[in-house]
Amino acid sequence: MKPLNQLTAWEAAAAIERGETTPTAVVQACLERIAERNEQIQAFVASDPELALAGARAAEAMPAGPLRGIPFAAKDIFDTVDYPTEYGSPIYRGHRPVADAGCVALAKHRGAVLMGKVATGEFATQTPSKAVNPLRVTHTPGGSSSGSAAAVGDYMVPVAFGTQTTGSIVRPAIYCGAVGYKPSFGLIATGGMKPLSPSQDTVGVITRDVADAAFFTMGLHGARDVMSGSVLRPRIGLCLSRQWDYAHPSTIAAIERAADTLARAGAQVTRFWLPAEFEALEAMQLRLFAFEARQTLAQERLHNESQLSPRLQARLRGGADVGLDEYTAMLQHVAQMRARARALFDDYDVLLYPAADGEAEAGHANSGSPRYGAIWTLLHMPCVSFPLETGPGGLPLGAQLIGAYGQDNRLLAAARFATSVLGSVLRPVH
Amino acid sequence: MKPLNQLTAWEAAAAIERGETTPTAVVQACLERIAERNEQIQAFVASDPELALAGARAAEAMPAGPLRGIPFAAKDIFDTVDYPTEYGSPIYRGHRPVADAGCVALAKHRGAVLMGKVATGEFATQTPSKAVNPLRVTHTPGGSSSGSAAAVGDYMVPVAFGTQTTGSIVRPAIYCGAVGYKPSFGLIATGGMKPLSPSQDTVGVITRDVADAAFFTMGLHGARDVMSGSVLRPRIGLCLSRQWDYAHPSTIAAIERAADTLARAGAQVTRFWLPAEFEALEAMQLRLFAFEARQTLAQERLHNESQLSPRLQARLRGGADVGLDEYTAMLQHVAQMRARARALFDDYDVLLYPAADGEAEAGHANSGSPRYGAIWTLLHMPCVSFPLETGPGGLPLGAQLIGAYGQDNRLLAAARFATSVLGSVLRPVH
Repeated sequence: MKPLNQLTAWEAAAAIERGETTPTAVVQACLERIAERNEQIQAFVASDPELALAGARAAEAMPAGPLRGIPFAAKDIFDTVDYPTEYGSPIYRGHRPVADAGCVALAKHRGAVLMGKVATGEFATQTPSKAVNPLRVTHTPGGSSSGSAAAVGDYMVPVAFGTQTTGSIVRPAIYCGAVGYKPSFGLIATGGMKPLSPSQDTVGVITRDVADAAFFTMGLHGARDVMSGSVLRPRIGLCLSRQWDYAHPSTIAAIERAADTLARAGAQVTRFWLPAEFEALEAMQLRLFAFEARQTLAQERLHNESQLSPRLQARLRGGADVGLDEYTAMLQHVAQMRARARALFDDYDVLLYPAADGEAEAGHANSGSPRYGAIWTLLHMPCVSFPLETGPGGLPLGAQLIGAYGQDNRLLAAARFATSVLGSVLRPVH
Repeated sequence: MKPLNQLTAWEAAAAIERGETTPTAVVQACLERIAERNEQIQAFVASDPELALAGARAAEAMPAGPLRGIPFAAKDIFDTVDYPTEYGSPIYRGHRPVADAGCVALAKHRGAVLMGKVATGEFATQTPSKAVNPLRVTHTPGGSSSGSAAAVGDYMVPVAFGTQTTGSIVRPAIYCGAVGYKPSFGLIATGGMKPLSPSQDTVGVITRDVADAAFFTMGLHGARDVMSGSVLRPRIGLCLSRQWDYAHPSTIAAIERAADTLARAGAQVTRFWLPAEFEALEAMQLRLFAFEARQTLAQERLHNESQLSPRLQARLRGGADVGLDEYTAMLQHVAQMRARARALFDDYDVLLYPAADGEAEAGHANSGSPRYGAIWTLLHMPCVSFPLETGPGGLPLGAQLIGAYGQDNRLLAAARFATSVLGSVLRPVH
């Protein structure tokens, strides 16, 4: 058996149910990994071995259940009673919420063991946290779910909650060699998450394979089946758009190679251009975001502006010219586009699309562009990102598959097919 | 001039700008009303005259602005730093948030003066608060925005924030003889509101006339114009459905009379049956609500269930059979219906619909049925409710006008036309 901290969540759950290991042993292995690595990686911003071990013992006393004994981490944008919750901002230093966020409470209730809080970009925006990329510590882990991606990619935990309002799950997952799953909007409730742009804020998970993303998300809702659908010959739309102009040649080549490999494995791969009306949503997403974030962060913007990063200050100020008339016009348009997006799936089960410009960038001043998530997050569509291959710089290149709204099962099945064919499952690098 | 506590927000703002009164005088008048009446009405669950007067003095030092010196109250489902925030539940007794909800922070920033917190049904559900109907204290003020409606209806404040996830603004407003405005979903951000069903939770206001609802909401966003559109001959669709079977004959007669009066005043009033596919959304709304509320209230349900009311316990348990597959299917369907709802407005500017079965009911064990809000809240459509006439029991009967998603200006203009024609503007009753 692999070292226990390298097990995926479903491998750990199966080993626990077969009596081959115990929640305490799995949690202990993850704690050792955290103790060994976190000073360098800075993925966890708060963790407490005693609390985690107490959680493991409690899980051992529970009846069998899908998530019993599974270690997990929560992005520090989710309220927790056991750990400070600082939202990636000095404004909330030492803040202690009085209740767990809904998704954290549910995971604990199902027997999963909260290992602590992991770093977030400031209020889940692109301002970086202190976390570094575990595959190369001089490079960014991406953002805003930086700690989630770094902790999972570094084998500290098999799964972590993240959030995405533009591209904050799909990109860091790839940068850190992990899998990012942003479900359909609403599938995991946002209660207890610090809101940013409520019409887009989506809770998701970062894991080390696609099955785990399904396993943990379904387990959260008490479902035991990993997924109910399977796709033998998925119809994949290779979705071209002007956003590809920003993708590095290595990313484009990797996606082209992946498309060829998938086609040889039986998928129907068809190239098509994203209709211009969908491309136009990228700019709208920014303005809708700005209008909403100025409201949700009103307290901080109006009373603690000097404690916001210059980047976030500028972004919020930049939204001041989005008026009510423009906002209500956008609401009308987006509702129509959300419905029309279903027609994109008349001929395809899923779309194949970039999720990051290229490999993780050097330095820690930037967390990379979230652009490839903007359209799909605005449209509430589920996305799964994963590494495709190692790029010329030695770090992962990846892509995302995108499903129709509410068709998470089909998406997850297609993503499992794709990662199985492409062999893009993580292997330990340390 | 009327007593200062009886001024609407825009009357008070105009009087302040003309130098005829001051924020301190207006706030003082409202404080006196609260001191005189709240022991009986129980609209406010927390208020502090010193804090309110300090807010008024701060407003006097501000440059002129639309909301400068306007007293307002916030439903106790919104986080506030100056007052405890208990969400209508003993679980949160004495809870002190560290930041104001976005809408509260914005209102204060615009110069409005927070007078305190007003009662909410338990976690914004139908379990009643202790507030009573100011028009007849033996009767319910409705819910869940019970304190908001009672405080405004009783002239304690001209405006209060409320929230609606099914019918929690439109119904209590009518019961208490006030105006309820539930904007398009998202128009006032939910940040800092305790979530219930995030795909439906909507922030709105209760006021004493339609112009005030527009004035305060637009002012929150820094807009000075009360509304940019006007409707001289609104096309009103009198929208029939099976929900009318639950409406009392007095409500139906009042709506019929109102339709006749509006037609005589120049409106085009056309009867039509709500297509069955929209009617079917009422049942779906309940199940979508249950699935989401079980997640957002997971902490409380799993750790403090005995402190939840039996009614809420039952409601949350009743949602346990809504599985992920049903939920994702509902998401897909609702997205389509939100887009198709626009076609309802091809021939109408607004729809006319009941908002409550009848007059406020006797007793305080129930807050009345929210059913008439279910379809429109799920569809994210803006609604304005107002009293039509005094019913046989001596309390208000009312209705709501419903607009297309994002067309709040048109709705507010039509509602102003309607209330002007119908004369359904509050007059002081005490």
